[in-house]
Amino acid sequence: MKNQLLFIAFAGITLFSCKTEPTKKASISEASDNYKQDSIQIKNIFNAALTQGQSYEWLRDLTQNIGSRLSGSEGAAKSVVWGEQLMKEVGLDSVWLQPVMVPHWVRGEKEVANYEFNGEKINVPICALGGSIATPSNGISAQIIEVKSVDEAKNLGDKANGKIVFFNGAFDNTLINTFQAYGGCVGQRYGGASIVGKFGAKGVIVRSMTNGIDDYPHTGSMGYGDIPTSKYIPAAAISSRAAENLSKHLKENPNLEFYFKQSCENLPDAPSHNVVGEIKGIENTDKIMVIGGHLDSWDLGEGAHDDGTGIVQSLEVAYLFIKNNIKPKNTIRIVFFMNEENGLRGATEYARLAKENGEIHIGALESDAGGHTPRGFTIDANDKNRKLLQSWKELLAPYGLHDITAGGSGADIGPLKDEHVTLVGYRPDSQRYFDYHHAATDTFDKVNKRELELGSASMASIVYLMDKYLYNDEPLKP
Amino acid sequence: MKNQLLFIAFAGITLFSCKTEPTKKASISEASDNYKQDSIQIKNIFNAALTQGQSYEWLRDLTQNIGSRLSGSEGAAKSVVWGEQLMKEVGLDSVWLQPVMVPHWVRGEKEVANYEFNGEKINVPICALGGSIATPSNGISAQIIEVKSVDEAKNLGDKANGKIVFFNGAFDNTLINTFQAYGGCVGQRYGGASIVGKFGAKGVIVRSMTNGIDDYPHTGSMGYGDIPTSKYIPAAAISSRAAENLSKHLKENPNLEFYFKQSCENLPDAPSHNVVGEIKGIENTDKIMVIGGHLDSWDLGEGAHDDGTGIVQSLEVAYLFIKNNIKPKNTIRIVFFMNEENGLRGATEYARLAKENGEIHIGALESDAGGHTPRGFTIDANDKNRKLLQSWKELLAPYGLHDITAGGSGADIGPLKDEHVTLVGYRPDSQRYFDYHHAATDTFDKVNKRELELGSASMASIVYLMDKYLYNDEPLKP
Repeated sequence: MKNQLLFIAFAGITLFSCKTEPTKKASISEASDNYKQDSIQIKNIFNAALTQGQSYEWLRDLTQNIGSRLSGSEGAAKSVVWGEQLMKEVGLDSVWLQPVMVPHWVRGEKEVANYEFNGEKINVPICALGGSIATPSNGISAQIIEVKSVDEAKNLGDKANGKIVFFNGAFDNTLINTFQAYGGCVGQRYGGASIVGKFGAKGVIVRSMTNGIDDYPHTGSMGYGDIPTSKYIPAAAISSRAAENLSKHLKENPNLEFYFKQSCENLPDAPSHNVVGEIKGIENTDKIMVIGGHLDSWDLGEGAHDDGTGIVQSLEVAYLFIKNNIKPKNTIRIVFFMNEENGLRGATEYARLAKENGEIHIGALESDAGGHTPRGFTIDANDKNRKLLQSWKELLAPYGLHDITAGGSGADIGPLKDEHVTLVGYRPDSQRYFDYHHAATDTFDKVNKRELELGSASMASIVYLMDKYLYNDEPLKP
Repeated sequence: MKNQLLFIAFAGITLFSCKTEPTKKASISEASDNYKQDSIQIKNIFNAALTQGQSYEWLRDLTQNIGSRLSGSEGAAKSVVWGEQLMKEVGLDSVWLQPVMVPHWVRGEKEVANYEFNGEKINVPICALGGSIATPSNGISAQIIEVKSVDEAKNLGDKANGKIVFFNGAFDNTLINTFQAYGGCVGQRYGGASIVGKFGAKGVIVRSMTNGIDDYPHTGSMGYGDIPTSKYIPAAAISSRAAENLSKHLKENPNLEFYFKQSCENLPDAPSHNVVGEIKGIENTDKIMVIGGHLDSWDLGEGAHDDGTGIVQSLEVAYLFIKNNIKPKNTIRIVFFMNEENGLRGATEYARLAKENGEIHIGALESDAGGHTPRGFTIDANDKNRKLLQSWKELLAPYGLHDITAGGSGADIGPLKDEHVTLVGYRPDSQRYFDYHHAATDTFDKVNKRELELGSASMASIVYLMDKYLYNDEPLKP
């Protein structure tokens, strides 16, 4: 016990083997040599990231000189050019663009919302949800019906007719991982309009998806599912504080009239691109490991934590391999996916082309959970590879990477899912993420340089280990 | 392996025993029952902190309505009144003040520093170090001699005579824990003036103690050691960016003249207080566990992360015990220590009184490493109790508390050190801490509500376990 703790405390050089897989033929001393070598290489990766890292300046450039990058926008188009050029500058062996058509939704004029309460006009911070239709040009006004969940909304029936339905389900703040709280609420935002549109509701307003009480509306995607176009209704998010107040005011005056106006529009699909670059593998050129994030962002902030950080960290994985003269066995491919936020068209097209071209993907890693301090990885893989990745806990623990658990990976690499592919999601600390998520507050100044760089190094370290050890040469299911 | 991982993933309810101490007589099923009970109690503590926590609003009040609290200042005096009243409001069984005389250093007018380079006047962000003497009223001007470490300065000898010595040792950014990097540099700030004062240097300027490159001077304490008063010289911190630039400019012009002026002053010691409150133990009223942070702060910011967060988290431990109706076996004492920053007089007096009054302290927990997301605890205790605390890893891991290692505890509880006392330091994530430390940027807006509350709950959880299980009834050394 004491020794083990010393190992953890002093990190890096231990006598423990990290490979205990019983089918592996390596002797204990070989495994121990590997452990030492890996421990040193990981330390080198972290040292390079923390002293020569470029991700922070790349992110400054992307967020300050381009800014938001909603699919189909000028910002998105500029970011494709930016990404292609940067990949070339970093020195990838080849860089190319994958054309893809993307949804093109535009917000239009700044939205307006208000209601009268006790003779006073209350202005409400509001924004249209991505994909929503506009209100009529003079807005809509109706009585409010408040619900706290999708299930409650499903039971509204005729009661919703002619009303604005107010989805006010709040995050469960007792959940330590804030993504779980998001998961418990986001159905209101995505599906609310389709549920109550059927009942003849006039519109939908949704409490913003965030842990705290703030004055920012947090946007995000919504869809109309399979309801007829005639039943489409405008949908918007209001700030969490406005939601709290509205709920209180409704208790005093259940008949208050809520007004909102938005002029957003779904335009025809627009041309865009995934940006792809790679370092060729020296042994298995035809076997590919993908590392990526998404280049597009919502329009309200600068797309810093969502997902500028994932973009620059992914590229920094390649940069750190080059800086440390690590020659991967397999081909390492960096992908800046387009349109994760409202369509996943880039990811879908990437996976389609991979299949069409008969490419062999053995692993994929996504960073799309913000740029905060590292916590670990979630793994979606067969048992053998999942256990392999979890056997690296001791190697990674000195860098704060303790949470290495089975779980989902990421939206953009999800379409590559297959029994032979090891999908991994990078998991930084989640506490602050939804303070900024999809809001005007998702800006460069919220990103900490060291936290960002530690993330790049965490990702490069697991890619280094996956490249070296991943089991990929045998079909596991006949 | 699989089962163990599931336990970690789903946390809380497992069949594992957390108490494996062989001398313990409890049967396996008893230990298992305890584990379940503890797991539930810890979950309750976290739930209460995250939904009913008060620490964030207390911190807002302390930082926004009082602000900085340098020992001897009006802010410090106000914070004592504030602390006493708040402890009473929270419902502690008894609350009292411990008088203590503290150093009374005042900054005086805003400091000025500049130099001419290539015909241009370069203004330098500067601040006097706490405890320093003033310059003459018209400032001092001299050539610069640059060193990168205390050792280099020790070898300067006559070369330092008549010069301003510029300590430009930077943080080692490859160290993952930023406190280690601080430890490697802070000797320049604390001891620089005493080292080169002996050699007849005219003054000292020190690169600010921070990881990054910013425009803020970070203050902190310094001392003159045992050199004669006649050798005292003024000492100041300059921003890290100014240090980088000055170093560059010195390479081009080694003879440039640096000017700085400060009017700080060491006044006679001033009266102040520790604020103390307690929840009486129901079994061992005479055995005490102390939980604390320091009420004083540097004068440049609002003393938010250093150490407003430690103050409000310490009190929230008591609040969470009361909210969850946890009746401690031992007496839980909350202490707001005065004068950690430049004298440690409060801590010294607390320990002196404890000894004088024959008080039996069995444990102490300090929060003085910022209010960021929880990472763990460091333990300074005898082997038996250290192993006991480390046996709780599985109970605490679901809350991000993975780093439970042997190590120092904290400056304010340090004077209680003894073979029978278990000293514990709360360790939040350290990446952002030195961005704000002792600078004008240490303000309330840098603190995240959830991170703060998770810290309170982490502290309350380990106090709950220590209160229940700590070995304290046998002298371990004769």
